[in-house]
Amino acid sequence: MGMITENMKNIYRETGADALFLEAEFLRKYLTGVSTTDGSVILDGNSCKFVIDLRYFEAVEKALRGSCVEAVEGTEAKATELLKGYHTLGVPFPYIDLARAEALRGMGFTLVDCMPAMKKAMEIKTDREIELLQRACDIAEEGLLRLMPQLKEGMTERQAAAILEYEMRALGADGVSFATILAFGAGGSVPHHETGDSKLKFGDPVLVDFGCKVEGYCSDCTRTFLFGDDKQHEDFKKAYAAVLKAHELVKEKVHAGMTGREADAVARDCLKEAGYGELFTHSLGHGIGLLIHEFPRLAPRSEEILSDGMVFSDEPGVYLPGKFGIRIEDSCYMKDGKVISFMKKTDRNLIIL
Amino acid sequence: MGMITENMKNIYRETGADALFLEAEFLRKYLTGVSTTDGSVILDGNSCKFVIDLRYFEAVEKALRGSCVEAVEGTEAKATELLKGYHTLGVPFPYIDLARAEALRGMGFTLVDCMPAMKKAMEIKTDREIELLQRACDIAEEGLLRLMPQLKEGMTERQAAAILEYEMRALGADGVSFATILAFGAGGSVPHHETGDSKLKFGDPVLVDFGCKVEGYCSDCTRTFLFGDDKQHEDFKKAYAAVLKAHELVKEKVHAGMTGREADAVARDCLKEAGYGELFTHSLGHGIGLLIHEFPRLAPRSEEILSDGMVFSDEPGVYLPGKFGIRIEDSCYMKDGKVISFMKKTDRNLIIL
Repeated sequence: MGMITENMKNIYRETGADALFLEAEFLRKYLTGVSTTDGSVILDGNSCKFVIDLRYFEAVEKALRGSCVEAVEGTEAKATELLKGYHTLGVPFPYIDLARAEALRGMGFTLVDCMPAMKKAMEIKTDREIELLQRACDIAEEGLLRLMPQLKEGMTERQAAAILEYEMRALGADGVSFATILAFGAGGSVPHHETGDSKLKFGDPVLVDFGCKVEGYCSDCTRTFLFGDDKQHEDFKKAYAAVLKAHELVKEKVHAGMTGREADAVARDCLKEAGYGELFTHSLGHGIGLLIHEFPRLAPRSEEILSDGMVFSDEPGVYLPGKFGIRIEDSCYMKDGKVISFMKKTDRNLIIL
Repeated sequence: MGMITENMKNIYRETGADALFLEAEFLRKYLTGVSTTDGSVILDGNSCKFVIDLRYFEAVEKALRGSCVEAVEGTEAKATELLKGYHTLGVPFPYIDLARAEALRGMGFTLVDCMPAMKKAMEIKTDREIELLQRACDIAEEGLLRLMPQLKEGMTERQAAAILEYEMRALGADGVSFATILAFGAGGSVPHHETGDSKLKFGDPVLVDFGCKVEGYCSDCTRTFLFGDDKQHEDFKKAYAAVLKAHELVKEKVHAGMTGREADAVARDCLKEAGYGELFTHSLGHGIGLLIHEFPRLAPRSEEILSDGMVFSDEPGVYLPGKFGIRIEDSCYMKDGKVISFMKKTDRNLIIL
């Protein structure tokens, strides 16, 4: 076993506990690089141990060879044994359940929240993480491009989602990053429409909010387009232009050093000016990484400061209840102080199929 | 708004708090029948309110018409306002995070675990729930039947999983119930193998553990079969026969009134007798419902008593590290004291493609 990384040392120091004890899947994955649906990670100032049961041990042990993380075979009882001697434990308060926390307290441990330190580390992505996010975004976009020519009148939302998810899977994705939102017609006016059995009609707006995972890392993309133009889309096209303007303005104006609130305001003010302020009913964006909703938040009350290495969505939207919804979303990252989109393959200009 | 249901009243009474406050997705879905990725449910002795923000309000309000649940538009602040006047809150200790729990305690609430009462209600499925679980199982099996003839030499595990997931989606599933485990060859000897880029070869055992969701309800199925018989499968076939015997014995011998431990022992003793005791490295089964892993547990230390209306997996397995893994799993339910399998379409006898 090698020395633990500088990043691990920083997280350990900032948390200020005797050891970190992590059972949440995405935190285990972040620290060890290995995906499992079970197990726990124990990090102290000198070592990092991955306690994992027999079902996974063989695979985990192999994956960790050459890393600074040691695989230890066992279940919860083994982890508890390894925690002996520590008094304060760093656990992620937003990602540990109360039953587990009370059990640890019952064993005499004092719990300290390690999430501020984890968050600080995790929200600045490494080059390797950016690379995986780029792959997840490339696959998502390519999947959409493969879906478009397969859309046919009479197809249900569910069928279209099935094709999109298949294409992403076939392109190498490990799965979807969240349940695909695919809405035909007025369905798009519900920002989190449940993909159902509505059938595609000529002239329908199509809103698709989707993404996939590559080695745990998520992509998130939304496109809105028309399935044929029945010439009754004046309001839609006007609103589309406004959303697109807000979306692009974010990429142009948002920069390192701004707060999440200020970034949100770039899109919000733009839509207000165009008369759509009331219809932009959610926040501009959210961090993306091993979770589909991560840090930072780009929202009216977010004081988080944007900086290089952060990854977030740029997704303004306008929703006219019962009529249509429009959302244009790219996954983006910050580099040299500027916003760079991961999305390079799909047009953001209005597409009419 | 009608009166709250008897089931709601029982949960309320058994919890013994002034109100239940539920933010976990599957618990909201259970009480209200509506799926959302956000919102909270407040249940007291007289009313049940679903607090949901603007993004979903339109859809939720519509879905709840005619039910005893009232839709209230708002976010967390609105929920907090509605909690005023209550002193003790029933929250699900295993499904509320520590940060949220501490925040509620900070507001002066005393927290009581509502999970024992919720669990007691949820583990006995209604006819409607059995119907949805049956649909989820039918789709899973039909998906596998459609996958089999599409398997080709040289295809990767990931490609095969993509086809299976597509077929389930196209058959009406809302998505997978967990990340599909698809293993070719020796990959199956890792019980939770990560579906990857291994290519299918003639003579490979194929292990596929998969399922889908229908209106939130999960199916769970595992089949192991041979992709052609290269005549070197004597050990495999012997082990397969033993696993199949254990699997079928569970259906035959397990009955209402037995504990989860006794049910597990039916399979474990059978495999021990055949000389595979050490190689059956996990427990026999788990409850299935809105979560893929629910109550009851069929495991060596489970004292839960099995009864009518319970739904669980029957999944004995044998794993020979580096050689092969065999698992045969049906989703089952208990009716008139007996185990009934939801799986009716796929053969459990060894299939050689």
